[in-house]
Amino acid sequence: MTLKVYLSGEIHTDWRVEVAQACEGLDVEFSGPVTDHGASDDCGVAILGAESDKFWHDRKGAGVNSIRTRTGLEKADVVVVRFGEKYKQWNAAFDAGYASALGKPLVIVHPPEHQHALKEVDAAAAAVAETPLQVAQILRYVETGKLP
Amino acid sequence: MTLKVYLSGEIHTDWRVEVAQACEGLDVEFSGPVTDHGASDDCGVAILGAESDKFWHDRKGAGVNSIRTRTGLEKADVVVVRFGEKYKQWNAAFDAGYASALGKPLVIVHPPEHQHALKEVDAAAAAVAETPLQVAQILRYVETGKLP
Amino acid sequence: MTLKVYLSGEIHTDWRVEVAQACEGLDVEFSGPVTDHGASDDCGVAILGAESDKFWHDRKGAGVNSIRTRTGLEKADVVVVRFGEKYKQWNAAFDAGYASALGKPLVIVHPPEHQHALKEVDAAAAAVAETPLQVAQILRYVETGKLP
Amino acid sequence: MTLKVYLSGEIHTDWRVEVAQACEGLDVEFSGPVTDHGASDDCGVAILGAESDKFWHDRKGAGVNSIRTRTGLEKADVVVVRFGEKYKQWNAAFDAGYASALGKPLVIVHPPEHQHALKEVDAAAAAVAETPLQVAQILRYVETGKLP
Amino acid sequence: MTLKVYLSGEIHTDWRVEVAQACEGLDVEFSGPVTDHGASDDCGVAILGAESDKFWHDRKGAGVNSIRTRTGLEKADVVVVRFGEKYKQWNAAFDAGYASALGKPLVIVHPPEHQHALKEVDAAAAAVAETPLQVAQILRYVETGKLP
Amino acid sequence: MTLKVYLSGEIHTDWRVEVAQACEGLDVEFSGPVTDHGASDDCGVAILGAESDKFWHDRKGAGVNSIRTRTGLEKADVVVVRFGEKYKQWNAAFDAGYASALGKPLVIVHPPEHQHALKEVDAAAAAVAETPLQVAQILRYVETGKLP
Amino acid sequence: MTLKVYLSGEIHTDWRVEVAQACEGLDVEFSGPVTDHGASDDCGVAILGAESDKFWHDRKGAGVNSIRTRTGLEKADVVVVRFGEKYKQWNAAFDAGYASALGKPLVIVHPPEHQHALKEVDAAAAAVAETPLQVAQILRYVETGKLP
Amino acid sequence: MTLKVYLSGEIHTDWRVEVAQACEGLDVEFSGPVTDHGASDDCGVAILGAESDKFWHDRKGAGVNSIRTRTGLEKADVVVVRFGEKYKQWNAAFDAGYASALGKPLVIVHPPEHQHALKEVDAAAAAVAETPLQVAQILRYVETGKLP
Repeated sequence: MTLKVYLSGEIHTDWRVEVAQACEGLDVEFSGPVTDHGASDDCGVAILGAESDKFWHDRKGAGVNSIRTRTGLEKADVVVVRFGEKYKQWNAAFDAGYASALGKPLVIVHPPEHQHALKEVDAAAAAVAETPLQVAQILRYVETGKLP
Repeated sequence: MTLKVYLSGEIHTDWRVEVAQACEGLDVEFSGPVTDHGASDDCGVAILGAESDKFWHDRKGAGVNSIRTRTGLEKADVVVVRFGEKYKQWNAAFDAGYASALGKPLVIVHPPEHQHALKEVDAAAAAVAETPLQVAQILRYVETGKLP
Repeated sequence: MTLKVYLSGEIHTDWRVEVAQACEGLDVEFSGPVTDHGASDDCGVAILGAESDKFWHDRKGAGVNSIRTRTGLEKADVVVVRFGEKYKQWNAAFDAGYASALGKPLVIVHPPEHQHALKEVDAAAAAVAETPLQVAQILRYVETGKLP
Repeated sequence: MTLKVYLSGEIHTDWRVEVAQACEGLDVEFSGPVTDHGASDDCGVAILGAESDKFWHDRKGAGVNSIRTRTGLEKADVVVVRFGEKYKQWNAAFDAGYASALGKPLVIVHPPEHQHALKEVDAAAAAVAETPLQVAQILRYVETGKLP
Repeated sequence: MTLKVYLSGEIHTDWRVEVAQACEGLDVEFSGPVTDHGASDDCGVAILGAESDKFWHDRKGAGVNSIRTRTGLEKADVVVVRFGEKYKQWNAAFDAGYASALGKPLVIVHPPEHQHALKEVDAAAAAVAETPLQVAQILRYVETGKLP
Repeated sequence: MTLKVYLSGEIHTDWRVEVAQACEGLDVEFSGPVTDHGASDDCGVAILGAESDKFWHDRKGAGVNSIRTRTGLEKADVVVVRFGEKYKQWNAAFDAGYASALGKPLVIVHPPEHQHALKEVDAAAAAVAETPLQVAQILRYVETGKLP
Repeated sequence: MTLKVYLSGEIHTDWRVEVAQACEGLDVEFSGPVTDHGASDDCGVAILGAESDKFWHDRKGAGVNSIRTRTGLEKADVVVVRFGEKYKQWNAAFDAGYASALGKPLVIVHPPEHQHALKEVDAAAAAVAETPLQVAQILRYVETGKLP
Repeated sequence: MTLKVYLSGEIHTDWRVEVAQACEGLDVEFSGPVTDHGASDDCGVAILGAESDKFWHDRKGAGVNSIRTRTGLEKADVVVVRFGEKYKQWNAAFDAGYASALGKPLVIVHPPEHQHALKEVDAAAAAVAETPLQVAQILRYVETGKLP
């Protein structure tokens, strides 16, 4: 059984690489959003033409990105959402809500100081982790039944 | 046709009252989360017993609150989500994602400075407003076809 | 049993009134799009602010209108879509496809000269009529079992 | 991740070939309707027997074609619908509505002069393009995160 | 709780009346197909125009009737399907399969001699009865918990 | 908003009455299984005829009861499942799993000594209570936002 | 694109073989019920133990067979149902109704004399054929766009 | 056709091995819960950190295990649930209810003395077996049509 895992949320550290490396040997297939911040912001206008208004510039980009993110979320068996230490990260919480309504098992990752602010999101999760290594250990256990 | 409208998000101003007052005369039925911040934080332990660990204190409360919020979201015809000027408001974004996956028409409300941070959420919305009055005008138009 | 009927499509004649009048005495509840063409075109900018670009002017309006049309389609027991003699009427065909995917019984109404162009849409329908009176006769039969 | 893309709509130019060629090297699987206009019109009677009435001739063909189009739409990850410059193209709009109700990300392609007539369809789309090359660039970005 | 019960199948005896009379006092709302055999056969052509070919005469009628039967099945809490002693009654079995796929509790009614031929249909049912009185007793028990 | 609450599980105490009494004044509509143990065991054979084999005697009864329990679960906004101190109570756990897969908010009620044995069931719940009074307090909070 | 086709209905001729042979070279994967009549009737008791009552003998077998038939119907892209000249064939009509409620494209096959009795079933179909060869021609057209 | 079979329930005997061995040569893919009792109980705290309260210790473990069990149930074509002779086994009944609501064909396995207590669960099943060998014989029949 290949486990399809969507890695949503924070894009300013290499946590996706850490998860993937710690999952070496497992039958796991990862997907996620485009993590090149500039490309992600500008994809709409770069492909479909410039907008003078920043709001519609953003809308075009968000539309194009949604093709990838929605497809990834719909196909995933498990959705992992990481909240980092900075930024609003509302799209991460949006993805968590979206995945929850689809009935996908959720793993939420965040530093301890976000516990109170994320309590509703955490309550919808199958597991709440703090580190990429813990995410990998969960996936390893889910696939093999082996504890670290 | 009674329009069922769930008003999610910011709970520190009386925007729900403003929307409701500006909808006077319409056949609209509003629902929303518990807006008493203290009750919302403590409902779990107040009913089901104290927890020494804040994380589980929060979990118990979030669980109890989810009964109301999920039921409200599932029953709504339209979901309005307001992002205020303060706090992380991740549960607002979570509700927006949840409603979006259920196929509910979304109206997102936020001040202009949040446009870039909310671009993915806005892109999933049928309308993006800035004020409670605009929300009411949308609901009035949806029900009656009348513009302000 | 109240039969909820959504009347989609052509908005330049009073066919909705004709259907409703010919249904007098039946337990039918009608809904439909806003039929004031000007309001329908301008609702987005009238409520949410002007746009300099016509494309986004239209997008804002279409978004607001979708709240009403999607809600009406989702709640309907039967969806009637009329194609008139003029205009592209792509939104009528879009509504027909949307309703079909939701499994709603479809009644398509159009003049005979559109038969070939509408063959895929007609093939998805439970009935293909030419006049508002026929639509009413179908609804009367569905409710009462009486033929005209 | 193989991306399954259904190419609906206009069948009188070779835009499907253009999209496919510009996607060379990507892991994309295309499907679409039968584009041989004569075969598409006559498949019902050619296989299942002649009809004297053109309406039922068309119905038989539309029924047989729907097996292919519905299956393609249901299986697709992304649905692209192109509106050309001629003909009513109601089946294209029907497919767009059908795909939208299924929650499939939509890319709509049309020349600028159709913007107003297609505003409801565009508003349901993740992206609105004008050329086959843009469609391919979107698919390339969705798969690889690379901008043109 | 009003129990919505769809009474499908055999239309040549007054079993629907028997069920309804034996349910007197219960909060049950019955629906079912048009039971006027002639009207049911001819509704399509009577409203939408004559057909020279019997196959399409039948198709038009079946289409119009499907608006009522599908709506009734979708809205029902419980679906009762009676197989009488005569005729093919394939539409009864079709309704049973349709209701079963929707997850509706099924009550199948037939004389003992049909047991082997109906074994797949019976196996999908919550109860298999032989008489209208038994159907009413089941509905009474479901509503009130009282046995006869 | 009337809250529909299904009270599943233990039938040997009057906990349903306790919950209902403690909910006085709330807009709550309760449903649940038949709680007359004898009627519940024998309803199948009492209505549909005796069986010599106890297994099929039970099957007939379970089928008839499922009409009520499935309908109640499907219609409920909230599902409460109580595990008492005695018996296997597998049907209670079955109902909890059924409700969980339907996405219904679950409240599980049981004495502390069942915590370990019910850990998977509890983990699927929005709240875990020990007493009927707590259930009523949860429902009161969900409806009114008031804590005890 | 492999097309998954479930061949339901009549089991007393070798029509499934005829369809398969006429589909040579196509990327089609066929499934269907067990066509060994004796095994199909007795599978329940042969594996799970004898029953003295024929009704339960049949029930056990129908239950076991339903594992195969339901799985096949759920997985199919297209469902073909053949009604032969003899027997009640209610399970064929049940399968057609089941597949229709799942939204599967249906091809119904029957001799002309069954047209009136099957009119509701035919009206739910994408195509109505008379011979296995026509079924194969439809599948070939759906896969390749080629007419016979 | 690979048949995906989830083996839920009792983890204190090697019945899963018996089923698998007796299915040799079949195209069946088995999945199931982690059967190492200690790992299953402690996976939450082992990966995500210790809890002083046994209730939350259990909750953490049940959450992590649910990722595997829910994914397995959702992906399965057939769900087999075995009730052994000891323990409460409420998670087995929960899985059965969950699978039933998803419409998965259920095979329930238990010793004869549990018949009355499991009557509601058995009534939701396609087959009720007593031994692992019977489960394998059912799977062999479903795949090949061959009786033992």
